[in-house]
Amino acid sequence: MKTLLLKKEEVSTLIAMKDVIAAVEEAYKAFNSEQVEQPDYIGMHLPSPGSEIDFKLGYYKANDLISMKTSSGGFVDNPTAFGVPNGMGTILLFDARNGALICVMDGSLITGLRTGAAGAVSVKVLARKGARRITSIGTGNQARMQIRAIREVMKIEEIHAWDNSGDTLSRFKADIEKEFGIPVVVARSKKDAVEQADILVTTTRGKGSLVEADWIRPGTHIVAIGTDQRGKQELDPEIFRNAKVVVDSIAQCSEKGETWHPLERHIITKNGIHGEIGEILLGSKPGRERDDEVTIFDSTGMAIQDNTTASKIYSNAIERGVGTFFEFFES
Amino acid sequence: MKTLLLKKEEVSTLIAMKDVIAAVEEAYKAFNSEQVEQPDYIGMHLPSPGSEIDFKLGYYKANDLISMKTSSGGFVDNPTAFGVPNGMGTILLFDARNGALICVMDGSLITGLRTGAAGAVSVKVLARKGARRITSIGTGNQARMQIRAIREVMKIEEIHAWDNSGDTLSRFKADIEKEFGIPVVVARSKKDAVEQADILVTTTRGKGSLVEADWIRPGTHIVAIGTDQRGKQELDPEIFRNAKVVVDSIAQCSEKGETWHPLERHIITKNGIHGEIGEILLGSKPGRERDDEVTIFDSTGMAIQDNTTASKIYSNAIERGVGTFFEFFES
Repeated sequence: MKTLLLKKEEVSTLIAMKDVIAAVEEAYKAFNSEQVEQPDYIGMHLPSPGSEIDFKLGYYKANDLISMKTSSGGFVDNPTAFGVPNGMGTILLFDARNGALICVMDGSLITGLRTGAAGAVSVKVLARKGARRITSIGTGNQARMQIRAIREVMKIEEIHAWDNSGDTLSRFKADIEKEFGIPVVVARSKKDAVEQADILVTTTRGKGSLVEADWIRPGTHIVAIGTDQRGKQELDPEIFRNAKVVVDSIAQCSEKGETWHPLERHIITKNGIHGEIGEILLGSKPGRERDDEVTIFDSTGMAIQDNTTASKIYSNAIERGVGTFFEFFES
Repeated sequence: MKTLLLKKEEVSTLIAMKDVIAAVEEAYKAFNSEQVEQPDYIGMHLPSPGSEIDFKLGYYKANDLISMKTSSGGFVDNPTAFGVPNGMGTILLFDARNGALICVMDGSLITGLRTGAAGAVSVKVLARKGARRITSIGTGNQARMQIRAIREVMKIEEIHAWDNSGDTLSRFKADIEKEFGIPVVVARSKKDAVEQADILVTTTRGKGSLVEADWIRPGTHIVAIGTDQRGKQELDPEIFRNAKVVVDSIAQCSEKGETWHPLERHIITKNGIHGEIGEILLGSKPGRERDDEVTIFDSTGMAIQDNTTASKIYSNAIERGVGTFFEFFES
């Protein structure tokens, strides 16, 4: 019985961002078609302050694959003490027809890729057709990933960027301009940046509101990425009052997404959530209906996104003969 | 960053039963010393009738290792349809200090080994000193494993065996007599077999009582292995009424072990459970106190047993230079 092993470098060559976008779109549709089982994930805090390890399981019935992603994060001493990154990941793929372990791949890249793709999928169905300007609140790795993904689905003419670290912001400007040739305007203030936005992308580790309601212009699409745990927050909950709120999973977002905050303050009710993005992709609910409406996509991340993305990487590897086979047992 | 890969054949050479017994004893003590985190396991039923895949996570603080065991089972068509066993397993070990994946090993053998060892550990603290005769109800793989383990901790003079399959029973007799030189008496009836027992070991997939209360002689130690899920049962619940009941985990056994049945029928109360075996091993509760008492050890199996056993296999592999290193990413 052979198991395919894939290194990080191989994973990075095996999937293009447009494939990840397609995989995430498939994941969202599957989630709303009763094709998915995603048991509650297991998370564990470890002794190193702020560190954790998570295990996320997703079963996609249509492709007969089960994915288990283990991700660690927050080990701030790792680079100096152990010579490894402060977060790592591994993905296992099992054949649901027989339980066999068919692939073990490095999982460092997938979370970033599929989260970037999530923003792009939302842009396809929720942003105004004429949207050209992105405002990026937060300019770290995930902000770059959002740009990399969104440029696959629209023409970005200009990016307005803000970060509380000037250094991070300067590197973001230099990298984005060099890699994509998109001009990045360093905002004088968050307010200034937000007021320029056709699409507002928030990717910080914020623990309180960073964006005020009256800064948001009509017609803005907001991609709310940073909040995936209770305690995190990026948006003034008042922004939700008259917006069209779309989530990846109502169950997850109402418990630990940005959407928790307006629910908690009774600014919206669960029934006031427009729907899950899979419903829009499947055509059972409308996406954007008017040029002047404010839309919000709240993404907390789902195991099924890892599943469809890792499945595509695996099938590309098999097709292209990339990777190393290992026989854990002879059969 | 290097990850050690261990094949099934390597795993089998890397650990002797007496090491597994020591590892399981360590696991039980750790469990009762606040050294263990074992989140609820994730289990999933799959389309093949009766099939499932489980993920069990255990963190042992004293050795700084996290284990994740994935086990599949019940895929009855696997040998013919896919050329693989009907159940497979994989164990991942992570360094809790930094989250790194340090080992991926085949996990087909560990569950059987550590479950066998569990019975032997219970024999050490609960069987009569003069015990020599074992009765085995059930004669499959786990019955063999129990014998293999128990013979490490006591001299077995004779085994009385019963199974509802005559073929399985004959193979058991032939194998045990050949491998260990212990005479196996094929019982004329379950009752006959049980009445011979100093130690009664039950390892069936029984779904109803197989052993009646009035067959049990005073002084018998019962190792109840088969029941690890709601719906399974091997013993008449009346056996528990006046017995000393010891479990691996009160939480688990009262929910899905053999102990659930007498609790459900109010034959015993949770307070009537003598204790967890780790408490006896640590000396905080007595083991067997009189030659004529009936003792029961109910084992449902814990992730920490996988952890300590896999850790020993891993450290033996490193020490002996066995296995294959694989770099999932360069660091």
